[in-house]
Amino acid sequence: MEEVVLAVDIGGTKTAAALADRHDRLLRTEVAATPAPEGPSAVVATVVALARRLLAGSGLRLSGVGIGTAGVVDVGSGTIVSATDTFTDWPGTPLAALVRAGLHDQLMPDAPVEVQNDVDAHALGEYRHGAAAGAPSALVVAVGTGVGAGLLVRDRQIRGAHHVAGEIAHLPVPGAVHLRCPCGRHGHLEAIGSGIGMHRHFLSIGGDPGIPDARGIAIAVTAGDPLARRALDESAAAVGRALAGAATLLDPERIVVTGGVPNIGEDWWRPMRAAFHAEAIDALQRTPILPGTLGDDAPLRGAAASAWRNS
Amino acid sequence: MEEVVLAVDIGGTKTAAALADRHDRLLRTEVAATPAPEGPSAVVATVVALARRLLAGSGLRLSGVGIGTAGVVDVGSGTIVSATDTFTDWPGTPLAALVRAGLHDQLMPDAPVEVQNDVDAHALGEYRHGAAAGAPSALVVAVGTGVGAGLLVRDRQIRGAHHVAGEIAHLPVPGAVHLRCPCGRHGHLEAIGSGIGMHRHFLSIGGDPGIPDARGIAIAVTAGDPLARRALDESAAAVGRALAGAATLLDPERIVVTGGVPNIGEDWWRPMRAAFHAEAIDALQRTPILPGTLGDDAPLRGAAASAWRNS
Repeated sequence: MEEVVLAVDIGGTKTAAALADRHDRLLRTEVAATPAPEGPSAVVATVVALARRLLAGSGLRLSGVGIGTAGVVDVGSGTIVSATDTFTDWPGTPLAALVRAGLHDQLMPDAPVEVQNDVDAHALGEYRHGAAAGAPSALVVAVGTGVGAGLLVRDRQIRGAHHVAGEIAHLPVPGAVHLRCPCGRHGHLEAIGSGIGMHRHFLSIGGDPGIPDARGIAIAVTAGDPLARRALDESAAAVGRALAGAATLLDPERIVVTGGVPNIGEDWWRPMRAAFHAEAIDALQRTPILPGTLGDDAPLRGAAASAWRNS
Repeated sequence: MEEVVLAVDIGGTKTAAALADRHDRLLRTEVAATPAPEGPSAVVATVVALARRLLAGSGLRLSGVGIGTAGVVDVGSGTIVSATDTFTDWPGTPLAALVRAGLHDQLMPDAPVEVQNDVDAHALGEYRHGAAAGAPSALVVAVGTGVGAGLLVRDRQIRGAHHVAGEIAHLPVPGAVHLRCPCGRHGHLEAIGSGIGMHRHFLSIGGDPGIPDARGIAIAVTAGDPLARRALDESAAAVGRALAGAATLLDPERIVVTGGVPNIGEDWWRPMRAAFHAEAIDALQRTPILPGTLGDDAPLRGAAASAWRNS
């Protein structure tokens, strides 16, 4: 009989689950709203329901479960360390144990349940199967409502002593001292480089308050709005500078940039790349900076890879 | 018969060599001036002469050779990739092969000759036997005439795709845009955080041109010179901020800071730590920042460890 694992991506607004084969290929996917405000039990129940829907009538049992989730994760124990307020009572949740209990009758004996941060799962997906496939090392950066990164060196993720390695969000960047980062400090990358940061920066320089978000800024740029252009340029440049700083420390074989903000297109990539090349030392000028290729499948394929690797 | 390796530290002004035992303990050490301006042959001849002096009459043969050297090193081939102008014709030098040839009659069969950057050797020494001993991961930063760092995760050094991982020198820091980095760009850590950078910053804010260097600035601080105090504070704070940025990306178990500049003492450590704690996210506030404990022995003990590890 075919062997499959369950791959899960728990985001702030939706949860996706898929069955995946030995090559981390997604066989079937189901999506539901994440009941983040209702607390951990509701979120776990959603994961369990999606899994049962995927398995219904198949006769399959799971060889493992891989979960990428919002929040800082203690990978060893599969427990949430900290999270944003979007998720009620998420910190301290023993997610691996709860999902194991909820799916106990669907698991093969000794099937692992592996939990990691969603950006790490995303990074692993791009590293194994996407834009960084075949590279010995990669820095995978997701730029969306927030900014996160995953570091992979010789097929290992660098997770850090406090589970926060890759927190490129809080790298200081020039030009952001007037903007408050979600961490409470000023001048960090996320405060200007994220979609929300770009919009706050746009408002701070006197941009039209009727434009609601980064996507609106991108549209205004194509319409010739000079403040929108400036906000987009400076936000993208902050990402490029931070990537240069990170590359200086880590010297990855490839840099992969994914997420909603890079989807703006060349209006974002051009100033981002220009800032990287202005900042990076000579040895790093040729480091490839590539868009992710897996889109929304990346965290699911990374979660699947973790499930297999430990099964 | 006792087994020993040769450990070598090739610096810009002097070269140290030692015999080391299986525990990387230094048994005997010899030092000579580095004939860096005379070219690779002279430098290699110095290494060979030191080794022969150490071995003379002992009847010992070397089980391996470990070398830490100024310059960027391709560890795989033991070749110098790039270096400062201090070393004439150093880039391209096949150092491992030349030292092997020079010591061929002193080597056990199959003895490895391992070459790495001197800061990496220093970092490995502190990681294995010094202030980071026992930690799963460490960031070891040397602040002297320049600034360098080594990253170690689970007993492996992260060297990077172009042999430049750990180049914390070129991390952008606020407050240094008026200072030119040796890499040619502005606003990088080394431009203000190194000893030379601190001195240039001191002169740029109108400090007494009669004070010749960072050590002179430290003395002027104790004498109450306010511009010396400001230069020292801002130089140390730049290092603290860069460490916070690096810790944010890497989340090391421990940070170790070594080199001539930290030897200034509490006048340097206080503003450095204050800047780290002002900048670092909550999860990193308790990351230990420790002075190195091995001093000049660190690169030799790290070089010895590399020689044994590969023998």
